[in-house]
Amino acid sequence: MTTKLVLLRHGESAWNQENRFTGWTDIGLTEKGILEAKRAGTLLSEGGYSFDIVYTSLLKRAILSANLVLDELQLLWLPVQRSWRLNERQYGALQGLDKMETVARHGKEQVFLWRRSYDVPPPPLALDDPRHPKQDPRYARLAPDLIPATECLKDVVSRVLPFWYDVIVPELRDNKRILVVAHGNSLRAFVKHLDTIPDDEIAELNIPTGIPLVYELDSNLRPVTHYYLGDPDEAEKAAAAVAAQAGSGH
Amino acid sequence: MTTKLVLLRHGESAWNQENRFTGWTDIGLTEKGILEAKRAGTLLSEGGYSFDIVYTSLLKRAILSANLVLDELQLLWLPVQRSWRLNERQYGALQGLDKMETVARHGKEQVFLWRRSYDVPPPPLALDDPRHPKQDPRYARLAPDLIPATECLKDVVSRVLPFWYDVIVPELRDNKRILVVAHGNSLRAFVKHLDTIPDDEIAELNIPTGIPLVYELDSNLRPVTHYYLGDPDEAEKAAAAVAAQAGSGH
Repeated sequence: MTTKLVLLRHGESAWNQENRFTGWTDIGLTEKGILEAKRAGTLLSEGGYSFDIVYTSLLKRAILSANLVLDELQLLWLPVQRSWRLNERQYGALQGLDKMETVARHGKEQVFLWRRSYDVPPPPLALDDPRHPKQDPRYARLAPDLIPATECLKDVVSRVLPFWYDVIVPELRDNKRILVVAHGNSLRAFVKHLDTIPDDEIAELNIPTGIPLVYELDSNLRPVTHYYLGDPDEAEKAAAAVAAQAGSGH
Repeated sequence: MTTKLVLLRHGESAWNQENRFTGWTDIGLTEKGILEAKRAGTLLSEGGYSFDIVYTSLLKRAILSANLVLDELQLLWLPVQRSWRLNERQYGALQGLDKMETVARHGKEQVFLWRRSYDVPPPPLALDDPRHPKQDPRYARLAPDLIPATECLKDVVSRVLPFWYDVIVPELRDNKRILVVAHGNSLRAFVKHLDTIPDDEIAELNIPTGIPLVYELDSNLRPVTHYYLGDPDEAEKAAAAVAAQAGSGH
């Protein structure tokens, strides 16, 4: 018998569309993003999926996507737990910048390194920068040394894993049906862990927005198989579109 | 120094509009109801209100209203806890019936008794009635003897009070800023308790939809004052409209 875990990347946000680095900036969904989230709900509903608990980040593009999915599933009453550990990668001083402009300023190679290396973080946000998460009440109860001024993908994996082990695994052990609605990089961290993807390959893995990714796990919570719901071609095209976008996944 | 507690009744639902008894039936908001909820968010935002935690019922008209308010306040990331104890009064076998038809069938006096007495519940739902909450997965983890087949207002007060004492009071003691988004009768239970309103008077108290009701509490959590946000005339008119509606508040 296998246990199912469903991962979902939020629908398109306004800054995805404007091609700006988003990171922890709290940007809402576009009309397209709203439709993507509703469509994810429809796919789950048509597949006969139901859930016992939902996890989201503290960022509204994930929270709104989760709300839309739950509304489609007639499951708005489910418990929802939000955690900063599911947030997108903190993109440091690049947050808010236009991706093309950043390439023009810092060079293609440097931006590629920030985007696609496993362990090179972008320049950090200054403590007094209004974009620094210390200014944001939603992180007021976190230990100051946990609040990142920038993150590489390795940092994201490090902070997502405690959530996997301490929150999700016990619920899976209790046979809870779990939906995680999060971001390109926090979901990469799950996939890296589940499929033991090497450090130098994980950044090439692109998770499309708004298409539920189902993992079937064995009794040791190791994946037996995984697949996207809906048309497989559509999922592949959507992942390719993400890959083609400069600074994708953030 | 006083502590503030904000109570909000959800916006208009489709069955408010159709004048049907709703109770625990999970009915969504009308366009007007969506606007009411957003307007409540705007009133709170303009009043400089912020919150630490939000409580809702398990019914989508309250959950959707809370989501809309939080979106207006840029506080979608707040923890939200839902409880069946905040649900509308369970309206028993009347749920889904047209209010005017019910008056025609059972007589004005009988319906008035069901609506406005403190301790006369409507006829209960049969256990095998598809409207019985035992058929609903959202109540699957409740002790069977807690799941009501019908309720009078007295029953609602009895099940709301443990939530007040066990959940809300400790958070108020911790200086948490609390928003409760619930229903005509579960909010009547709060108001009855806070303002020690007699049994035979509470049913005459009408709480308008979508207008935040602020209680300022002293250090013993007794009310110093309470008021509706926004235009006081508007709140009064809205309450009068609720009172004028047959079977109002449910």
